[in-house]
Amino acid sequence: MKHYILLSTIALLAACQTAPPEPAPTEKVIVKVIKKVDTPAPAAPTESQQWLYGSAESRITMVQSWNAIASYVEAKAESRPNASVVLAPGATAEAADFLACGADQPLAAVFDADETLIWNLGSMGYFTRTGVGFDPAIWDEWEKTGAGKAQAIPGVKDAFKRIRDAGVEIIVNTNRSNTNIQGSADTLKSAGLGEFAHGRSLYLRGDAPDGGAKDGRRYMISDNYCVIALAGDQLGDIADIFNDKALTPPERKALTVAPAFDQMWGNGWFILPNPVYGPSLAGTMEEVFPEDTYWEPPKQED
Amino acid sequence: MKHYILLSTIALLAACQTAPPEPAPTEKVIVKVIKKVDTPAPAAPTESQQWLYGSAESRITMVQSWNAIASYVEAKAESRPNASVVLAPGATAEAADFLACGADQPLAAVFDADETLIWNLGSMGYFTRTGVGFDPAIWDEWEKTGAGKAQAIPGVKDAFKRIRDAGVEIIVNTNRSNTNIQGSADTLKSAGLGEFAHGRSLYLRGDAPDGGAKDGRRYMISDNYCVIALAGDQLGDIADIFNDKALTPPERKALTVAPAFDQMWGNGWFILPNPVYGPSLAGTMEEVFPEDTYWEPPKQED
Repeated sequence: MKHYILLSTIALLAACQTAPPEPAPTEKVIVKVIKKVDTPAPAAPTESQQWLYGSAESRITMVQSWNAIASYVEAKAESRPNASVVLAPGATAEAADFLACGADQPLAAVFDADETLIWNLGSMGYFTRTGVGFDPAIWDEWEKTGAGKAQAIPGVKDAFKRIRDAGVEIIVNTNRSNTNIQGSADTLKSAGLGEFAHGRSLYLRGDAPDGGAKDGRRYMISDNYCVIALAGDQLGDIADIFNDKALTPPERKALTVAPAFDQMWGNGWFILPNPVYGPSLAGTMEEVFPEDTYWEPPKQED
Repeated sequence: MKHYILLSTIALLAACQTAPPEPAPTEKVIVKVIKKVDTPAPAAPTESQQWLYGSAESRITMVQSWNAIASYVEAKAESRPNASVVLAPGATAEAADFLACGADQPLAAVFDADETLIWNLGSMGYFTRTGVGFDPAIWDEWEKTGAGKAQAIPGVKDAFKRIRDAGVEIIVNTNRSNTNIQGSADTLKSAGLGEFAHGRSLYLRGDAPDGGAKDGRRYMISDNYCVIALAGDQLGDIADIFNDKALTPPERKALTVAPAFDQMWGNGWFILPNPVYGPSLAGTMEEVFPEDTYWEPPKQED
């Protein structure tokens, strides 16, 4: 751009220097302003998308995670537990009470769906291709019409077989809308994960009065089942207490380390990696790189 | 910017229009080219950094992973294995031979260091703060002087205690340079991970002729130990066969799924999530979002 300024500037100066006494019909000053056009970069996956959806490393962490969940559920089903892994209403880090299990309640494992059971490659590809980032209206269309364009996360199908063989019911608790029941059930079925029935094995946003919170649905599920495992890609898939908007990322992390909670991770509560979206993507420089780790290279002597 | 072009252009035209017969000592043309200064956005962590270094979700996946590694090593140490998990020279997906273990060889677990045992918060914070991305010369300074500014990854210290209590030697195989032995040993010690001795429990780039490849060092380690576990954040921490530069991301992923290799993940071979850097961050739109998952919202009728 500066290049063009100089050109037009020089052209004008030249014109001035050679300007005869006015008027000079045979000479004229031509000023050409060339506008720089920014051609948009071709769509490319983000590094997080490359890692999560594209890499061997991600696939392996998913297989490892789902094998661990299946092994835990198998072992737990053996020793008939009398306590659920669902936090009781009003539970805190200091008083972490869990729901009790009725002796005759069947066992269940409760899982989030998006980026826990399935990778939403169709919608994520669309958002990236078009550069819209995320659009709730388009996501709603995805819930309705995405069947066949989402893939089961590696390791999930094998884990589901082991969990079902252990006699444990698989229940999906997702924040997909209960206005799109059929689309989401079809998406899970098309991904090879089986049949899910609304209100029995599939719970959606709107089923309980607490909106996008999931405790209400966990309590509904617990009316009929003893929940021995919870898994998701976000803390809200475990308990809403972790989703308090007032918590900074370090405070939120500290809450998960409270003794009553810390012993649950990998032991009834399971988190899978998702660096692409969600409440885990937050934090300032100071929150992500704590002050006590501040470093800079030593000044070089010249 | 265009604004300034117009100003200077107008100034010149005005000067031309009012130019008297030369020379005109009382008038002169002043051309002021004002350079647009782009004020840099304040440094902010990337979403991958927020997830990996800042989020509760990441902390939990690390604790789950390291508990799984420790449990595997404890169980394996019980049943004295006669085969290593280190692939033999020339092994392929079709002929996946592993090194044998001498009956009298002590057991060892071999781990990568960076983003496997420690989070390099000091250097990553510096790179992000200054916007340099990554600079090998600065990284070299980090290897020399970063002790105390890297943190042990959550779950590693507990896992190390369990592994050592099981009588299994912990050996670090890192691509940090063997010109910075002391700095890297100090960094591991300052992070609370213990004492590591070069050539015995610490192997670095330059110790074997194959540069940044790690098989050479894995063979050296295997001269003295029966390796029962390998863990890292990249496939190169397991076997160099996965780092063939000719492999596209889907081909690289497919290689890890080959039956002989697939049964090893979580079963002697362990990968931890790292979406911040490394060979896992690769892939085109088509590679990350496969064609058979292509989706767009249905056209709306108006």
